[in-house]
Amino acid sequence: MAPTRPSLISVDWGTSSFRALLADENGAVLDRAESNRGILSVAVGEHERVLVEAVCAWRERSAAPIVMSGMIGSRQGWVEAPYAACPAGLEELAAATIEIATAALGTVLLVPGLSALDSSGAPDVMRGEETQIFGALARTGASDGLFVLPGTHSKWARVEAGRIVSFATYMTGEFFAVLKNHSILGRGMAEGEESGDGFEQGVDAAARLRRPGELLHALFMTRTLGLFDRLGPTQAADYLSGLLIGAEIAAATQAAKAATVVASAGLTERYRRAGARLGVALTPAPDHCALWGQMALLAARQKAVA
Amino acid sequence: MAPTRPSLISVDWGTSSFRALLADENGAVLDRAESNRGILSVAVGEHERVLVEAVCAWRERSAAPIVMSGMIGSRQGWVEAPYAACPAGLEELAAATIEIATAALGTVLLVPGLSALDSSGAPDVMRGEETQIFGALARTGASDGLFVLPGTHSKWARVEAGRIVSFATYMTGEFFAVLKNHSILGRGMAEGEESGDGFEQGVDAAARLRRPGELLHALFMTRTLGLFDRLGPTQAADYLSGLLIGAEIAAATQAAKAATVVASAGLTERYRRAGARLGVALTPAPDHCALWGQMALLAARQKAVA
Repeated sequence: MAPTRPSLISVDWGTSSFRALLADENGAVLDRAESNRGILSVAVGEHERVLVEAVCAWRERSAAPIVMSGMIGSRQGWVEAPYAACPAGLEELAAATIEIATAALGTVLLVPGLSALDSSGAPDVMRGEETQIFGALARTGASDGLFVLPGTHSKWARVEAGRIVSFATYMTGEFFAVLKNHSILGRGMAEGEESGDGFEQGVDAAARLRRPGELLHALFMTRTLGLFDRLGPTQAADYLSGLLIGAEIAAATQAAKAATVVASAGLTERYRRAGARLGVALTPAPDHCALWGQMALLAARQKAVA
Repeated sequence: MAPTRPSLISVDWGTSSFRALLADENGAVLDRAESNRGILSVAVGEHERVLVEAVCAWRERSAAPIVMSGMIGSRQGWVEAPYAACPAGLEELAAATIEIATAALGTVLLVPGLSALDSSGAPDVMRGEETQIFGALARTGASDGLFVLPGTHSKWARVEAGRIVSFATYMTGEFFAVLKNHSILGRGMAEGEESGDGFEQGVDAAARLRRPGELLHALFMTRTLGLFDRLGPTQAADYLSGLLIGAEIAAATQAAKAATVVASAGLTERYRRAGARLGVALTPAPDHCALWGQMALLAARQKAVA
């Protein structure tokens, strides 16, 4: 049997982390490199050096193309890759991909993000999630559906006929963090063994909300339920999490009753539990969606050239 | 003409500020004292000393009763005054008022806060605002209506036949502060001359929201509108303020089309502008509502004794 040949150096370079995978032509991961060198910790002019340090050993073994996606293409990144506008499929993304010439690594490809307008005409943006969505599509053979990429800024994207037609960002993860760390809500919270059903209570409270501003009221209940001993200190953080994630899912799914989650196992499980309580089936995407999306993008580029 | 006689030493003692007024029997303010000695800055056992320093000169001139309301009656205050439950009028509040015996000032009265259950059965609380609402009622002769006391934690209270029947807290002011100071939204904000119509744009965005979780999405637009140069850096803070205040007013007014605002002139004007855009008439309450509420409470106590 011939040794497996590297065919892609896949880089997912975000705000706070750097992840690289070396993959063969079947998408099997041959090696990996991870660090906390997200773009916030890399100074202008230092990006090439950080990339070389991470992948030069792989480069010596192979001429596999290097493809980067994520916040590395933002104004605060290495080179700004202008957003491609939705609706956008792999063809549009491939056409808007940037080539960066480097001394040590040759040409490096940089996938742009996407922009979309919401129903009110306000703009929204993503960087990196589009590549993961196209990876999930490539890996599963699907060409339609609703996708959620939860996190600091959760993205919900609708795919039709293989193209991302619209999406919306929800600040759920960042909200949770600032409220826990900087608001009065955090004062009633304690780390602890078991949170019981705090998360489920929060999701149920979200399901009862009717008007947008009621969220500003419901969040205060994280505190008052504690004042009246109806929520323990170790339950409060999970209650807040359930309230925010529940409100996000309820707003983002509307008519839809199912979506695919692209996230870590822990976060996927958290969303699955909340969705189940709200009548929305949230199922996990395959692993390594960024890698699969970049492979699909390379194939689309080759097709465009051919 | 006889010199005006002091008839009340009125103390509004909150989380971050201490305010005292010396008033005559007509509610005219004869003298005032203010400091930043809110309860967060006063250690256990030090409350009496702080009060004595502020009002002992007045006490030497008069035996006027001393009445305190606000967070001073909370678990983190001087003495915890258990909440009176809604519906509650002046009679219930007077009956639940606490007497604190002091060496230097004699008996000091402490007005309790109120608790209420929302439609989902979750508890809510206020301390100090109830006294201001009864003051507004006493001063205007009204016995029904909707009242808003905006701030860090805005309170919306419904009054029927002179009693507070229900209320809800909205974390609007605290939300604004933590998002501005600790989230990515603050990064795009700049202090500046003129914010143009940033506030109105935010209120209009709030009016377009339909589902509770959509607020988590709309807030992100504070950033993306800036990315696409549709909102200037000096407009962003006002946009965020308009979005939050607009969502609060829309949720809290529902069927109602009018409410009375108890707040500083600047905050009252901000709420009035947002309300006008949402079809809700918000009119200012008279000055010194805490003082007037405490006077009404004293009268109710005397009536109960008689």
